[in-house]
Amino acid sequence: MTTATFTLGQLAARFELAMRGDPQQPIAGVATLAQAGPTQLGFLANPRYRAQLAQTQAAAVVLREADADAWDGSCLIARDPYVAFAKIAALYERQPAAAPGIHPSAVVAATATIAAGASIGPYCVIEDGARVDDGAVLGPHCIVGRDCAVGAQSRLVARVTLVQDVTLGKRVLVHPGAVLGADGFGLAFDRDHWIKVPQLGGVVVGDDCEIGANTTIDRGALGDTVLEEDVRLDNQIQIAHNVRIGAHSALAGCAAVAGSATIGRYCLIGGGAGILGHLSLADRVTVTAMSLVTHSLREPGEYSSGTPIQPNRLWRRNAARFRHLDEIARRVGAAGKEEDP
Amino acid sequence: MTTATFTLGQLAARFELAMRGDPQQPIAGVATLAQAGPTQLGFLANPRYRAQLAQTQAAAVVLREADADAWDGSCLIARDPYVAFAKIAALYERQPAAAPGIHPSAVVAATATIAAGASIGPYCVIEDGARVDDGAVLGPHCIVGRDCAVGAQSRLVARVTLVQDVTLGKRVLVHPGAVLGADGFGLAFDRDHWIKVPQLGGVVVGDDCEIGANTTIDRGALGDTVLEEDVRLDNQIQIAHNVRIGAHSALAGCAAVAGSATIGRYCLIGGGAGILGHLSLADRVTVTAMSLVTHSLREPGEYSSGTPIQPNRLWRRNAARFRHLDEIARRVGAAGKEEDP
Amino acid sequence: MTTATFTLGQLAARFELAMRGDPQQPIAGVATLAQAGPTQLGFLANPRYRAQLAQTQAAAVVLREADADAWDGSCLIARDPYVAFAKIAALYERQPAAAPGIHPSAVVAATATIAAGASIGPYCVIEDGARVDDGAVLGPHCIVGRDCAVGAQSRLVARVTLVQDVTLGKRVLVHPGAVLGADGFGLAFDRDHWIKVPQLGGVVVGDDCEIGANTTIDRGALGDTVLEEDVRLDNQIQIAHNVRIGAHSALAGCAAVAGSATIGRYCLIGGGAGILGHLSLADRVTVTAMSLVTHSLREPGEYSSGTPIQPNRLWRRNAARFRHLDEIARRVGAAGKEEDP
Repeated sequence: MTTATFTLGQLAARFELAMRGDPQQPIAGVATLAQAGPTQLGFLANPRYRAQLAQTQAAAVVLREADADAWDGSCLIARDPYVAFAKIAALYERQPAAAPGIHPSAVVAATATIAAGASIGPYCVIEDGARVDDGAVLGPHCIVGRDCAVGAQSRLVARVTLVQDVTLGKRVLVHPGAVLGADGFGLAFDRDHWIKVPQLGGVVVGDDCEIGANTTIDRGALGDTVLEEDVRLDNQIQIAHNVRIGAHSALAGCAAVAGSATIGRYCLIGGGAGILGHLSLADRVTVTAMSLVTHSLREPGEYSSGTPIQPNRLWRRNAARFRHLDEIARRVGAAGKEEDP
Repeated sequence: MTTATFTLGQLAARFELAMRGDPQQPIAGVATLAQAGPTQLGFLANPRYRAQLAQTQAAAVVLREADADAWDGSCLIARDPYVAFAKIAALYERQPAAAPGIHPSAVVAATATIAAGASIGPYCVIEDGARVDDGAVLGPHCIVGRDCAVGAQSRLVARVTLVQDVTLGKRVLVHPGAVLGADGFGLAFDRDHWIKVPQLGGVVVGDDCEIGANTTIDRGALGDTVLEEDVRLDNQIQIAHNVRIGAHSALAGCAAVAGSATIGRYCLIGGGAGILGHLSLADRVTVTAMSLVTHSLREPGEYSSGTPIQPNRLWRRNAARFRHLDEIARRVGAAGKEEDP
Repeated sequence: MTTATFTLGQLAARFELAMRGDPQQPIAGVATLAQAGPTQLGFLANPRYRAQLAQTQAAAVVLREADADAWDGSCLIARDPYVAFAKIAALYERQPAAAPGIHPSAVVAATATIAAGASIGPYCVIEDGARVDDGAVLGPHCIVGRDCAVGAQSRLVARVTLVQDVTLGKRVLVHPGAVLGADGFGLAFDRDHWIKVPQLGGVVVGDDCEIGANTTIDRGALGDTVLEEDVRLDNQIQIAHNVRIGAHSALAGCAAVAGSATIGRYCLIGGGAGILGHLSLADRVTVTAMSLVTHSLREPGEYSSGTPIQPNRLWRRNAARFRHLDEIARRVGAAGKEEDP
């Protein structure tokens, strides 16, 4: 397990930050301002917490130039303290290096290709035609199915399932329970019963994506389901067949995107939001939590649906009136008649 | 791996479709109109895409009689082109036959019964009293718990958990990460703390059902949770204890059904929709995405709740007014006073 | 497998319930009033079902004093029949005792500590520094990651993942597919791409908690994500990093709590509800199904958002008008102008 102590000066040099204070000050870890001890580094990113500077025991603080006056201790000056803190914190992660090699309990098909520098953990199953590239790390219980590929330096933490025809780029991080490449939900109704529509495509995940725990990404019906580079998916997200998600977009927990929807670049989709199928979101669209997008959004900006939280007693009265909102509107002669919502 | 080329004539004969063109035309696969190459079959099911016929490189197209005039190449005439395409596409699935037998790494209880023609993959665990019938296929890492039964020709793709007292019919398809037969959420509040209510029932899944990735179906408290035949569940669906879902109903991703609710036959439940407990949906009820059903729906038809997506700036003003909708309604003398929403 | 028959008199004595009828009456199991046979015990907790007493074949019924007149057979009188029934039903659960010991296929790190009285099932993986206490039971395919601890008498039913730095108290029950301790969704945006914010905290789960199938609880960014004692989580719940849930709170299926939110004691969160981040719910707050909580709720009570379910044709008209609710409100001079929803 690799933990280390760095000096303030070393951190300043490594991340090209201006420093004030003793360059020899040891920094043994990171913490919030409220909880930091005398060998730890804190950070101030949100002005709302400025007042915490007065009480903190932190050895040093990462903050903006503008906040440096409010703190008379050692500090690192950063244009974006949260980003700087994230980079510094990564030095203190206790992440043991995974030894290259294949655990004896792994079941690896003869036609699979495992790079010498890859690490395959206990009880992994690697199927025909699969490929795992150099520096990739598979934790215990991962399944890499037929014709799947795991790119260099990618990491499947544990119990990840790549079902079939899934291609991960480099430095992709996938959390436990995620299932990529299961069949998209393709059904055709034949008079009185369902026929399954075979799903013949795959899943392509770009470099540097992160996919959360128990998230599901289905393979395409014809053609692939695609995540461009640096897409970030939280837990329990559902991505249906033939969705395309643009680079640098991020989706929060429990969001869902229906079949053949296209999400642009730099989009932010809030927790529990839903995007219906066969529509497009432009670049830089933000959808707030638990909103439902039912038509394409062609302009960047923030979009919402829903109603506010209220004491139930009050909500019931308002909700009851919603059933008659069309009548109310007609009575006052307002706009919105028979529009498509 | 079985892939094949069929001729247009062979496809026409096999699926009893009228054919126009060269019966010897080889068809090596299927694709969308936009992406089909000169040995592939496309389809036109949605009139919205008729214009794509003019550009397609497809060797032949499946379409309706009425659209045959818009296409001068080879074709197969179908009453329902999407259904026909689904059946044809199944011929081109690259699905290796699973060899019958039990992988040496599988742990099988002495009191379990595995048919000779069943296929049990690496690291499967089959517990006491469980049964796996002929032609059933268990991919890697499946768990078939105590007294569970997997019917003939069913397939558990990989990493499926049948916890206890789960009975799957014939030709049931279950995708990775699905959990059937976990305890229903039974709690009794005893003055100042919770008591767990034991869940003593099971789960019964009818023939030809399909259950999506990471979907959960709980065992009943007393009596079973039941899916009738040909029920189709997408990913990340939650089915609570003692729910009954009628034959041929389909639920889209992330839908949830609370305890003891009954869903009729031929129902369609949209993505992210919620059905509260102890209520009934009639046959042929459709609930749109992210709607919440709070009382029984006794008539067939389509039902919805929610509000439309808007630019956040506009939505905020409307949402703020919702808090006072009862007052607004009273001012105009509209209906909906003190109704139960 | 342990099943037993108890006499009515034994049940009365064990649970300190008044009894009417033959103390020697054998009770072989429990069932609903509608389905009970002549050797089974039924219960009447909800007055709505009183009429079922007339038809039931049950050997005896657990009910309130006030309902005893409506039943002339044997009975057990309870202040809370549902709680009494839950306790009695537990005697009839067919739960084989798990044999202490470590299955030969389990992979256990040299630095892990497994109590002699713990039971570790097939294909479990226990990593460095992990600890499993006496009487704990791990079913097949569980992963107990680095520095995780499973408290005495806890049970991981099957396929549970404790990723890293997860501490479970005593008598914690975790259902299949649950993932505890995956990285919280920490991202910092660095000009044109995302930087991952390392998650350095853990997860702490108090005594007697129950965690449903496929539920995810993320480790903290700095400091832990915490469930106090007797918290009950249904299936497919998402708990983000640094959330704190107070003792005896219960969350129904598919609910989600965003980062750093605090939920008080004795809260009830309905199915599919969402709680945004960095806010607080007081004790004894109830949030109804599929509501979205966007600000702190500082008073006990019931809270809701959303609109009622309607036939789609009617809903469309009302939803269309919602887009102009601000105009409607201004026309009638109602309150709610430019408030923060």
